Parts: sequence; C-alpha cells; structure tokens
Amino acid sequence: MQSEPIHDIAHLAHVEMLTPKPEESLRFFVDVVGMQETARKGDSVYLRAYDDYLHHTLKLTAAKQPGMAHFALRTWSPQALERRVKAVEAVGLGIGWTEGDLGQGKTFVARTPDGHNLELFYEAEWYTPPPALKPALKNQAQRFPARGVNVRRLDHMNLLASEVTPTRKFFQEQLGMRMTEQIVFDNGVEMGAWVTATNKSYDIAIARDSTGTRGRFHHMTYALDSREEILRAADIFLEHGVFIETGPHKHAIQQTMFLYVYEPGGNRFEVANAGARLILAPDWKPIVWTEAERKKGQAWGLQTVHSFHTYGTPPVEHAEDKPAKKAGS
Amino acid sequence: MQSEPIHDIAHLAHVEMLTPKPEESLRFFVDVVGMQETARKGDSVYLRAYDDYLHHTLKLTAAKQPGMAHFALRTWSPQALERRVKAVEAVGLGIGWTEGDLGQGKTFVARTPDGHNLELFYEAEWYTPPPALKPALKNQAQRFPARGVNVRRLDHMNLLASEVTPTRKFFQEQLGMRMTEQIVFDNGVEMGAWVTATNKSYDIAIARDSTGTRGRFHHMTYALDSREEILRAADIFLEHGVFIETGPHKHAIQQTMFLYVYEPGGNRFEVANAGARLILAPDWKPIVWTEAERKKGQAWGLQTVHSFHTYGTPPVEHAEDKPAKKAGS
Amino acid sequence: MQSEPIHDIAHLAHVEMLTPKPEESLRFFVDVVGMQETARKGDSVYLRAYDDYLHHTLKLTAAKQPGMAHFALRTWSPQALERRVKAVEAVGLGIGWTEGDLGQGKTFVARTPDGHNLELFYEAEWYTPPPALKPALKNQAQRFPARGVNVRRLDHMNLLASEVTPTRKFFQEQLGMRMTEQIVFDNGVEMGAWVTATNKSYDIAIARDSTGTRGRFHHMTYALDSREEILRAADIFLEHGVFIETGPHKHAIQQTMFLYVYEPGGNRFEVANAGARLILAPDWKPIVWTEAERKKGQAWGLQTVHSFHTYGTPPVEHAEDKPAKKAGS
Amino acid sequence: MQSEPIHDIAHLAHVEMLTPKPEESLRFFVDVVGMQETARKGDSVYLRAYDDYLHHTLKLTAAKQPGMAHFALRTWSPQALERRVKAVEAVGLGIGWTEGDLGQGKTFVARTPDGHNLELFYEAEWYTPPPALKPALKNQAQRFPARGVNVRRLDHMNLLASEVTPTRKFFQEQLGMRMTEQIVFDNGVEMGAWVTATNKSYDIAIARDSTGTRGRFHHMTYALDSREEILRAADIFLEHGVFIETGPHKHAIQQTMFLYVYEPGGNRFEVANAGARLILAPDWKPIVWTEAERKKGQAWGLQTVHSFHTYGTPPVEHAEDKPAKKAGS
Repeated sequence: MQSEPIHDIAHLAHVEMLTPKPEESLRFFVDVVGMQETARKGDSVYLRAYDDYLHHTLKLTAAKQPGMAHFALRTWSPQALERRVKAVEAVGLGIGWTEGDLGQGKTFVARTPDGHNLELFYEAEWYTPPPALKPALKNQAQRFPARGVNVRRLDHMNLLASEVTPTRKFFQEQLGMRMTEQIVFDNGVEMGAWVTATNKSYDIAIARDSTGTRGRFHHMTYALDSREEILRAADIFLEHGVFIETGPHKHAIQQTMFLYVYEPGGNRFEVANAGARLILAPDWKPIVWTEAERKKGQAWGLQTVHSFHTYGTPPVEHAEDKPAKKAGS
Repeated sequence: MQSEPIHDIAHLAHVEMLTPKPEESLRFFVDVVGMQETARKGDSVYLRAYDDYLHHTLKLTAAKQPGMAHFALRTWSPQALERRVKAVEAVGLGIGWTEGDLGQGKTFVARTPDGHNLELFYEAEWYTPPPALKPALKNQAQRFPARGVNVRRLDHMNLLASEVTPTRKFFQEQLGMRMTEQIVFDNGVEMGAWVTATNKSYDIAIARDSTGTRGRFHHMTYALDSREEILRAADIFLEHGVFIETGPHKHAIQQTMFLYVYEPGGNRFEVANAGARLILAPDWKPIVWTEAERKKGQAWGLQTVHSFHTYGTPPVEHAEDKPAKKAGS
Repeated sequence: MQSEPIHDIAHLAHVEMLTPKPEESLRFFVDVVGMQETARKGDSVYLRAYDDYLHHTLKLTAAKQPGMAHFALRTWSPQALERRVKAVEAVGLGIGWTEGDLGQGKTFVARTPDGHNLELFYEAEWYTPPPALKPALKNQAQRFPARGVNVRRLDHMNLLASEVTPTRKFFQEQLGMRMTEQIVFDNGVEMGAWVTATNKSYDIAIARDSTGTRGRFHHMTYALDSREEILRAADIFLEHGVFIETGPHKHAIQQTMFLYVYEPGGNRFEVANAGARLILAPDWKPIVWTEAERKKGQAWGLQTVHSFHTYGTPPVEHAEDKPAKKAGS
Repeated sequence: MQSEPIHDIAHLAHVEMLTPKPEESLRFFVDVVGMQETARKGDSVYLRAYDDYLHHTLKLTAAKQPGMAHFALRTWSPQALERRVKAVEAVGLGIGWTEGDLGQGKTFVARTPDGHNLELFYEAEWYTPPPALKPALKNQAQRFPARGVNVRRLDHMNLLASEVTPTRKFFQEQLGMRMTEQIVFDNGVEMGAWVTATNKSYDIAIARDSTGTRGRFHHMTYALDSREEILRAADIFLEHGVFIETGPHKHAIQQTMFLYVYEPGGNRFEVANAGARLILAPDWKPIVWTEAERKKGQAWGLQTVHSFHTYGTPPVEHAEDKPAKKAGS
C-alpha cells in the first residue's frame, strides 16, 4: 500500500527581509502596501497584513544589503514540529533550538540544502487589534485599512537556488510538502518547482539562480482578493513611483494573476491573486512544463522579463545579476 | 500534550441532487450554470464544473421530489478511508461497502446522525477532456466554457438538520473536520455550524431545520473566481428567469459573497466567492455568533430572507416550510 | 422638420450640501470617501474627487439642518449660458447674477419649479494639483488617493419634488436636457424622472416626495470605476460604522450598481457605477416604468427600502419622513 | 467672443470590415466575441453587440484582403446631417448621397483626407429583439448573451494615416469633433490623435502609418463593463487559440484598459474598458504626449509591441508592415 501524505506543516508563517533603506522600506510597506506595524525590536520592525492572524508575517530588518535573513513555517501541532525537526536533523540540516521571537515560541532553526535560513515553530501568539483597528466582522483579524494596496495575507515566497532539485526534495521529503508544478528543460535541468503544504497551489517556489549563487531570495508575495485589485495595485504603485518589473499579467504556471515591483531596499515584492483555484485532489500529479512551453511566455503571451531570471537579493558580482532599470534607485 | 488534528478527509467530492424536472434541471446546469455533462446512467446525468478534476461533482437524478440523495467525501489515502470507516462504524452510523459509481472506486456508505446519506471513498478516476474541451493551460481540468455563469469548482454544501449539534460533532469527531464558525442562540440552541477539511473556511455547513424534520438539504454551492462574477451571475440568472432568493450580498459569517437561486427542480443552488480568505491557522478558534449579532443581518445590512430559514428539500407538510415566491414554478 | 436638440448644458458642476455636523461630515468625505479639500471660506469647505477637473464638486457648509443649499450646472460656452438664462427668465424662475464663488466666474442664480436653488455658469478655474498630489499620468486631475472609497468624479444628483412633472419639464424645456427614463403610476402620477445633458444616462433624477414638501434633497452620487469597487466601498463603510441604507445592488432603472449611505450630517450619499452603459442614440425614447414593474423591486429582486421613498433632507414634521434606523445618530 | 462648439455628430455608428476568411471571421465574432447576427445581404453579414441599439455596428464583408471598407457616423438630427455634408463638400471630400443600407436611411458618402471611406446619416432603424433575445430589463437592447466575451457596445475605431494632421483636422473642422489627446514627436511630427463627439474620451483615433500608405485600418473596439472582463476576455481568447498581440494592460494615453487580438481575417480587434472616466469639461485642453513620454511605454511599463506601430490592414508590400507572429494564420 502507498505511503501516506504528511500533514505537519500548516503554512508559511513569516519572512525576515533585509533592507539597506529601512525607513523607505517601512514607508513602502505601511503607506503603499497597506500593512500594519505591530512591534519594533533592535533593527527590526514587525509587520502584518490586515487579515494575517499572526503577530507578524514580515520582519523588516536594517542591513547593508537587501536579501532574506530567514523564513518560518508553522506546524500543525507540537508533535508535528518534533517530527519535522527529527527529519531535518537526520539529513544534517538542523542548526538548533531558540527561544523564538516576538509573538513566537520555541523555534527550531535549520537550513535548506541551498543555504537559506529556515525556522520551524508551533507556539504562536494571535494578533489582537487595538480598539481603533477592531474589525466590524469578528472573523477578520483587523479592520480593513483602506490605505494603499490593502494586502490581505501573506501568500508565498520564492527562493533562488543554485540547484533546484535538492531544495525541492528537502521541502517534500523532510517537511512533507507536495510538489504541484515544475519546469524541466530539455537538458534535464530542473529550472523551477512549486511546493505546497496547504490547498493553495503553492506556498514556496524555488527557481534556478542563473548566477549559480547559493541561498538567495527571489521574492515574497501577499494575496489580494481579486484580479481587479491587482490592477488597482499597479495604479497605486505607478502613482508612488514604485518600479514595476513586470505585470499585471497571468502566470501560465499556477494561473496566478501577478504584479512584481522592487521595494525601496531592492527586494522583489509581489501581489497576487489565484481566483478560486485551489488544489483539492489528494493525488495531484505535478504538472511538468517543458522548455518549449516556457518560451511561449506567460498565459496571455507576455514574455518573461530577463531580470526575472537573473536578479535576486543580495546582489552578487556576476554578469547575469542585473535588476531591471532603476531598481532600488 | 494536546491530541493531534486529523487529516483524513481531502474534500467534498460530489452531491447527488434529486429533481422532479430532470430535463429542465439539466438545461439549467448546462446552459445557465455552464457545467459539463460527463456521463448518463439510469435516471442520472453526471456533471462537473470546468476546473473540477473528478469525473463528476454533481449527479442529477430524476425523482418525485427534489432533495439530496447523498453526498460524498474523498479521503487523503486508502488508509485514511479505513480509519474513517472504523470511526463511523464505532458510533453505529455505518451502512456498508459498495463497488462505487462511475469514476469512483470502492465506497463506504454511512449516515449522519440526522439521517443524511453519505459516501466515503478514495479511489477516483480523473476527468480527461475530449479534444474539443482541452484547455490551453495544462494545469486546468477543462477548457473555460464561456457559457452562462461559468462555475469553476464545487465548493461546499449546506445540510438542514433537526438538531445541529450531533451532526456537527459527527463531522468533527468521526471524520476529523474542524469547526470554523457557529451560531448559538441565547437559549443555548446551536442554530448553525460550519466545518472544514481544507483551508477553505467551510466545506459543509449545518443549519437547524425550523420544521424539525430530519435529514433535509439546504443547498449546494459552486465557486466563481471573483465577486464581480457573482454579480454577472445575477445578471444571467435574471435574463433566464431563474428565481433569485437572495443576494448578491456578503455573508457576515465566513465573509463569502453569495447568490442563492432555486434550480428548476426546486432545490436551492448557490454561487459564491471567498476572495483570498483562507483558514491557515492550525489552532483556529471557532467564531461564535450570538442571536443579537444574527439580527443585524448580513455583512452590509441585508436582512436574511425568511425562506432561507424555512425552505428545504424535500418539501414537508409544515407551516414553516415555504419557498420564497414562485419557487420551482 | 423636427426641432433640433439643445446642447447648452455641459454637466452637473457641483452641489452645496448643508450639515449640522460639519467636522464629522468633513472627516467622512476626506477619510472615508477619499475626497480632497481644496479651500475653506466662511462656514464652507470645498472638496473634489481625484479626477474632478473643477476646483470643487462638493461645497460642504455648516448649517442647523442637513439639506442641499444649491446645485450648479456648467454650460458649453458663454453663449450657451446666455441662452439658458433667457429661457429660465422667460418662465419667471430666474433670480439674478452673482460674481460666482471660489473657482467659478459670473453665475446666474435660479430656482426649479419645486424651489431648489440652482446656479448656471460657464467660467471656471481648473484644479491644479500641488506637487504631492501630482498624478503619474498627466491626463488625470490628481493622484489617485488610495484612501478610503476613492471616488473618481461627481456623477449625478437626485432631487425630491412635491410634483415631478414641472421640475422635469424645466430641465427639458428651459435647460435642454433629455429625459431617458421615467416612472408613471397607474393613476397617471409621475413618480420619478431621469434627465441628462451628457452621454451618461442621467445627470439629475427627480423623485416624488411622499411628504408633499417642496424643494428637498434626496442624494448626490460619485462614480467609482467598477462594480467591484462598490462592493469594496460597502466593506469600508461597514468598517467605519457608516449607516448603509440599501445596496450594493443593481437598479432596474438605468442599470446602475448602487450603494446608499447616510453621511454624518444626515444627508443620503451614493457611490455608483454604470459599467460601459452610455446613452449614445440621439433619438433615445424614454423608458417608462409602470407601477407593476416597480413592485418587482430592483434588478436582482431586492425590494426598495421604505425610507428610500420617504426620507429626504432637510427632515420635515411628517408621518412619512423617517430615515432608516439610526440615521445621523 | 469664442466660437461655439459643434454638436452635430452623435456617435460612431458602424464599421464595415473586410475579411478573406468570412466564415471563420463570422464564427469569431459570434461564438468568441459574443455578437449577434441581424441580417445577411450579398457577401455581407450584419452584426451587433448586445447593447447596441442600432440594426448593426459591424458589417462583415468577404473580400480578397482584410481591411475596412468604410465607417459611419450618425448625426444628432437631419439638420446636423445637412450642415456636416455642406462642410465636407466645401473642402472637396464629399462623394454623394446613397439610399443607405439595411437599418439605415439616406446616407452621404465622403472620404477622409487620407482616403478612408466614410458615411454620414441620421435616419436609422432601432433593433427589436426576437422573443428569445428579449432582455429582462427593458432599458437594454437585447438579452445578455452569456456566450464568449460578451461585448456590450461599439466603442471606437483607429485609423492609420500617412499623415495624421490633415485627417485629425478634418474630424475637428468639418465634423465638429474635439481632440482630447495627441502625440507629437520632437521633430514636430504628429504621431497620433484622439477625437471625440461624445463624453467618451475618444470615438476615433488616428495613428501615423509607418509604411507611409494612405487610408489603412488599425483596429476597431468594443466596450466591456469592467477591467476584470478584459482579463476574462484574454482567458477566452487564449482558450480559442486567438492570437493576442498585446495586453491586457492600461494605456497611458486615455487610461483605457486594452486587449488587442487579430481576428481570423487578419484585422486587429480590441476589447476595452474606460472605467468611469469621461470627458465632461466643455473646455478640455488636449493632452500632448512627447516622444520621451511615449518611450516609457504603457501606463504600467509595458513596452508597446513593434507590430502595433507597423501592422495594418490591408497589408502592404513594405519592410515595416509585419504582423506580430502568426497573425491571420
């Protein structure tokens, strides 16, 4: 009889983003993106979208270079956390336990095969809105901000990796996530993979880094309620002089409506919407996209911009690592 | 240490709807709702929405009275099916195994405490579109129909129950689903409950039947990609003379945008959209709505129509069981 | 040969709204509705929507009672102004010339047959945004605010009248506007009329006042870009505790998507969207709605709320003049 | 005193499109675009969108080459027609009177300075729907089709011209239309102009033909109700293998949401939405876009595709006249 699916990871919990322009990045996330500050500690500001239930989903930390310091996954239970820690330790990728962070209890630190820092935890504090931010409907985490782009909740994150396969297998085998879609080129090289722990079609994407660098960050993404809101977000980014790298358009892969911009610190940031598309099938077979299919561009024919394949954070000294025009300028 | 959550049910798989007007109901689901016929057998026609991966999500069967013959849940694995069967048998609600149906393997038949027929299965055939219905993007089950309301996928079902509590507990305890929201009146009576096996905020709702009848059906629901598509659906139902019971409007409970109509056979039918709202928290605490809160009506103030609390299928001889005007006429 | 259509009125230019709660009304229009303050003078604050080209489209004036002090129409040319003044004077409804107001030159003051104050002018100052409000695209009057409901431009106004017919004929015959739709009851009484000077299906509506009072105000309306934005506006009004009288829903008459609220001063306020519907036919024949058709309610079946037929500003001592629950409270 | 604006042209009435693949073009407009056939005569099929009030807005005629045979403008009155005929004859561009066509009375035929054929008429037959197409709301021309893209009404047309200026001035001076936006390059050459007879920001656009050919056709456009419907149209075109040249995206000029495809005969076809943007100002000053501004691409940064500047119908033997990939294939 087939082995059973693992259900230990609940969801992507937060991302720690590094920015060399902390004040400008903060203003971007609060005023333009519409997020809420929940705390400050040291060089970090903690932020969340209006319907994120957690204390924070974005930790914005001042640093010399843009990039991602770590990302965190929340488990379904304390037992699930123990099981995943054992699986990660078994392949030598575990680092150790910490006391956690604001809003977050006992935490296990690890690394992906490509070197991205990763946290696993179960204990979490729920966000309680102050009176001025109390929502009209009590099944919502916080009042709708009606400010800027109004992102609803953290959706997913995309990692650049020197090699996709080991990191993708790590998420499948050590963490029990499922692969939903994949790009494999004619030479057999895996160019990208999408894995999920939920009914969303992906929580984490892994893309091949054309510079060959290990452990870099491609982008993180918040969800909006409709495709129309993605278009309105483009209007708002335009008004605020935010650099739009590509979109709004529809991905062929995963069919998500997307819009990519660069936040002031130089990190790529996305707002997206998946419509009512969910992966409900327990026996979903990964969709494998070929090199020829990728050459067709995005769903409605837009060619993928070159920088999307080459630019990541932190920047590296490499002929291929070029942001599109005026990134972070 | 707390007990662990159960992850054995994958999703609501299909509903068998009974109709005294089979030809008119079929035309409604195909021409107006935009569904696809996949097979016929005996008095039944098998239908699916364009992005349903299964052979069918609606089995439409000719009968003297409208109503729901049964509904089916697919499990995450064969082992999960065995576990749920044992749990159901342990409380005496199991009936027995069958060979399944078109597109569906070995099946266990059971009953809810309120008497609704229920199927559990794992083995399933995936839908393969004929050439004319092949989608442009291979991660979609079938070509977008561009006909009528264009429902995307089966979303949830609502059961009327003489008593909500036992049936709600059955879904939680025997099937391992989680309750996300609930209505409890001042007298302590549970008037409604919403349970989920997925990250959708509900897969099944249970509402108290004001006639006191056991085992009736309230409605079934397909998802559309946006709130705008719900509004367009209302335009289309209006053009086809379909009776709109209530909506489009936004539920306070679950915040779903809804639109309820009566299909020609007399069953209530809904199209809905939840935006990007999902339940990702592993420790979600059920939202409990009070009698006073329910009196405020729906999210934007629309009062819930009386028939919504009283009309179900099959109809019963009872002062309270009245459809809104011209139902099924 | 038939007489030629008159093209002298360009559009509805502004409305002066009276409020007994000037500070709260101002906060409503700026923070919740998303309008921009352009000037203050005496007891008045001048406001505009982000794509209004004029200095102001709403003049908000402190007063003991809510209501409308006057509304203004801009003509196509100085000559057109002269022609309309003559026509108004010819029926004895002219009052005289003034020097105008902020952003507005020489103005002729008049009265409708029902006693509403009216201004006619041609000379106008265009709004010039300060640097912080300069739009990214120079064909837009001002930066998109990304704050609250984000109304785009003034759309129309609805007058209550003791008798609809004389005031409707005044707009047609003295001002050269065209009637597009009309309600005439079985007893021959005209219950409502919609007139336009543009390709919008109406710029002014006139509704019969069930209290028999002369010269009252029903509501004014700003346009949003889509139906989805009307739904989002409802979410935002809900979050701010703004009383929603009715909607969002679709009018059968004119097919506009509507949402009616009460601003803090007690005046009815609407946001609306007409989709791509325009009246382009030069020989449009007015659509006449009967009493029976009106009883069907709005487009998708919502019954028109009672207060919509009875409540106007200023309030009057009359059994029928009741706002819906908690208006202005 | 300034001269008065002319209000003689009511709107763009129809376009006669030539197609070398009449059967495939017809299927495209009926099945994919969602239009309705109203008549056939000779080599022509007459079509309309669901809310077009006229007998037809598209006359599709079999021919050896794609292109536009003529376009027609309806006047506000018989007198307005006489005035415009005199103005056109005065500059030697009149050809003469005809008896009209199906659904259209006495017609004057003329030519633009660049050689496009043009009809002017006032007498017109209104479309009356057969019982099966009767709308639920009597202020709509026909039942919403719920088939394909569901275009609402004819919106505008774009002419290629060897020189923009003379043709633009013809629309302004002989026909009394107003220019709203314009592109003038650094060398003083007018590259494009947008003129309107309505409150829409344009009814006709004129673009410089890079091949220097006279009298060619760029595209014609139908309006959809929202930006979301443009996105859905892209999904539907994709499913039907229709070549998408560019979009969906937002024009910087006029801010319209656009989507360009090639119909099977090789003509460019657009669906568009303008939101609530209208030109209401009687003294609108044309927005002039510079060469540098045009280089920024469309509103959200998409570069204008090369074929958009070079491909027109009929095709000509010229290095520049290349459709984008697989046009008309």
